[in-house]
Amino acid sequence: MTKGAIVTREEDFPRWYQEVIAGAEMADNGPARGTMVIRPWGYGIWELMQAELDRRIKEAGAENAYFPLFIPEAFLKLEAEHVEGFAPELAVVTYGGGEELEEPLVLRPTSETVINHFFSKWVQSHRDLPLLVNQWANVVRWELRPRLFLRTREFLWQEGHTAHATEDDARSYALRILNDVYRSTMFEVLCIPVLTGHKTAREQFAGANRTWTCEGMMGDGKALQMGTSHELGQNFSRPFDITYANASDTLEYVWQTSWGVSTRLVGGLVMGHGDDFGLRLPPALAPVQVVVLVVKDAPEVRTAADTLVAELRAAGHRVRLDDRTDTSFGRRSVGWELKGVPVRVEVGPRDLAEGTVTVVVRHRREKHAVGLGAVADAVASVLAGAGAELLAEAMAAREARTVDAASLEEAVEGGRVGFARVRLDALGPDGEDRLAEHAVTVRCLQRPDGSLAEPGDAEDDLVAVVGRSY
Amino acid sequence: MTKGAIVTREEDFPRWYQEVIAGAEMADNGPARGTMVIRPWGYGIWELMQAELDRRIKEAGAENAYFPLFIPEAFLKLEAEHVEGFAPELAVVTYGGGEELEEPLVLRPTSETVINHFFSKWVQSHRDLPLLVNQWANVVRWELRPRLFLRTREFLWQEGHTAHATEDDARSYALRILNDVYRSTMFEVLCIPVLTGHKTAREQFAGANRTWTCEGMMGDGKALQMGTSHELGQNFSRPFDITYANASDTLEYVWQTSWGVSTRLVGGLVMGHGDDFGLRLPPALAPVQVVVLVVKDAPEVRTAADTLVAELRAAGHRVRLDDRTDTSFGRRSVGWELKGVPVRVEVGPRDLAEGTVTVVVRHRREKHAVGLGAVADAVASVLAGAGAELLAEAMAAREARTVDAASLEEAVEGGRVGFARVRLDALGPDGEDRLAEHAVTVRCLQRPDGSLAEPGDAEDDLVAVVGRSY
Repeated sequence: MTKGAIVTREEDFPRWYQEVIAGAEMADNGPARGTMVIRPWGYGIWELMQAELDRRIKEAGAENAYFPLFIPEAFLKLEAEHVEGFAPELAVVTYGGGEELEEPLVLRPTSETVINHFFSKWVQSHRDLPLLVNQWANVVRWELRPRLFLRTREFLWQEGHTAHATEDDARSYALRILNDVYRSTMFEVLCIPVLTGHKTAREQFAGANRTWTCEGMMGDGKALQMGTSHELGQNFSRPFDITYANASDTLEYVWQTSWGVSTRLVGGLVMGHGDDFGLRLPPALAPVQVVVLVVKDAPEVRTAADTLVAELRAAGHRVRLDDRTDTSFGRRSVGWELKGVPVRVEVGPRDLAEGTVTVVVRHRREKHAVGLGAVADAVASVLAGAGAELLAEAMAAREARTVDAASLEEAVEGGRVGFARVRLDALGPDGEDRLAEHAVTVRCLQRPDGSLAEPGDAEDDLVAVVGRSY
Repeated sequence: MTKGAIVTREEDFPRWYQEVIAGAEMADNGPARGTMVIRPWGYGIWELMQAELDRRIKEAGAENAYFPLFIPEAFLKLEAEHVEGFAPELAVVTYGGGEELEEPLVLRPTSETVINHFFSKWVQSHRDLPLLVNQWANVVRWELRPRLFLRTREFLWQEGHTAHATEDDARSYALRILNDVYRSTMFEVLCIPVLTGHKTAREQFAGANRTWTCEGMMGDGKALQMGTSHELGQNFSRPFDITYANASDTLEYVWQTSWGVSTRLVGGLVMGHGDDFGLRLPPALAPVQVVVLVVKDAPEVRTAADTLVAELRAAGHRVRLDDRTDTSFGRRSVGWELKGVPVRVEVGPRDLAEGTVTVVVRHRREKHAVGLGAVADAVASVLAGAGAELLAEAMAAREARTVDAASLEEAVEGGRVGFARVRLDALGPDGEDRLAEHAVTVRCLQRPDGSLAEPGDAEDDLVAVVGRSY
């Protein structure tokens, strides 16, 4: 039974997800299978995320650049281990300008190979290091079970690639991105309390020595990998011959990192905060933070609505006026709720006669009658607090669904409905195989106190976070 | 003979262009023929342009969205006239996921077809209009004579697509984009005094009823088409069946526009302002507006440089410290000049002993000794004025190379070294064919006073601007 315009999460979470995406006008399936049209509401959210990430990436010293979509096939053969991870996912261009190409061109599934080709030209001396480059781009992976935002054949992302003189410098940069860019954006902007840790050898990126990850818990208890930062060691610098002359003029191979997040984050936001009435947006990511609704057309209503819009805009909020009174108020109201706009201000003739309007707080679904003179303060207070409240709610939900497990069996049980924390040594040597039989995996490894492992830590002293995943 | 690190423009303009792009570290050729790597300096300029354009596009009411890279081949067959303009330029994906695709996918050369497919779903009623959508994306056209930024097989652009209830509304929106977004950005931000007008039937976009254009004059007197805004009439709404119910509930076809600018603008900036010593950047587009150079390492020099950097940053400028004293001062100086940084502040021990530093103004190539306490004011004054000075210089250069011609022969003569303005009726009925024999074309049509033609104007009363072009 539906509560609002959509199915409930409990009834059918995947269908609920699709209905929110469609109902909030966030995205559509593209005409070619597995592709996605990101509509203005979804793209507006992505643009706000991008700006927050981009600012942090620049603060971490990386500069943006752009590398080609087309990668000569030979490039992908340079680093065999890396290719094995991608070959079945590739899309290949064989015709250009009406003729068959002499060498087919692969559409980038990631730009590691082409960027490293240029790093080998650009890096000569220790004075060229660290080299810190980021790119915002579309990438292509031939997903077989596509799902909007979560897994599409083309998606948008940023990929950072860096080269350093020492392993330590590379390691601390990978962690700086993990903490100061990704974790910070996810907590402060997306308001999703991700767990951070590193992947097991089985789960990590094929080209990495260590993959650091941010794992969020979604509304159905499943994990979403929301961002990764890789220590690549010299796995690319050796085949791509990226060397630098050190201070005593000896050639050495650079140490590298790479890191990325994608439009998948938009899907994570939907599943992390959505309720049975639709999306709930943290104010920092709401393309419209306040919608002022004209309930019924009348001169005094319009005047009051216009005044409120001007006042709220002057206060620095993103405000939209909804005066489409030829569409029913109920329908418009449900529409804005589905879209997750943090605050609705409903201006109607009856309330107005008493000098009030109705302020609706989306994430708590509360309605308050507020005097006209107090609207600006009320709105500012909701917008200032909503992010922290969503974060606290998500944190409580995660904790309620997280158990400490003492055995593989307990880890499976807990991991099937949420997260189970279990000491790695309790899983045993074939633990990951046995978990996989139950469709759960190790999402990340942490120290028992939840902090990141240090180089000297023994693996068996670490805790594995086990769960299902997207 | 080279004046600086590069060949002079007079000696070999195309080579000069390549040397500036390479020397300023703006871009490299990609490994696949015709593709481009935009390096941080070039991409930083593009990001600043993008931000200025994006703000204006949003002020004009359009919202950003994202449509797929992959277009089913059948889509491009829907609008025959449109395809004819593109077929030899297409790149085609025939393999995905290790298998041959049942239907090949074309990489978007523009998104007209896929966007109109969705417009037909999204537009139902007059209440859905105008629908104003913009996208920032990469597009693919199989150029045979690629040149960095100007013509590459993949490039970055924005493409706007709109649907309106009336022809008038579409027309005025196309002009709003031309004037308030493109012309405004080119004059105020790029500081390039573009001519605006419309294309002849021969030169306009195949799918358009009228193509409005911005034409800039480059340093060699040739024209660069820097942005176009098209009135599409119902040329796409009929084949794509984009209809709306009007106020009396009758179905009507929408009227449309489309408009775009690309990374070609970066090439235009180079050729519009560059001199024999490299790039000259308007401050609004300079990733670094002021570089503070430590001439020679010494404690008092470092302290003074650090203080200046802090002071200039606090004033809101984009500032970089260059303390790479293990590289010769001359080499660093030439490097920043090549990159076009508007102001260099050179801090050396000898000047410092007299309480001064050297302020170098890039676009005028002037050096001034400035007292330490007066640097901030001097820099602010240069940055405030440099844009207008570059614009005035470009305007004077254009005027010096523009002639009024009374006949086709005179138009050819003038157009081969700059712009010739000639009445359209003086060119005669086969005028464009005859111009083409001399490698010149009509860049745009205007009223004799340089303003845009109005719907009632007779073609023969208009003036054709004739020139060579990129």
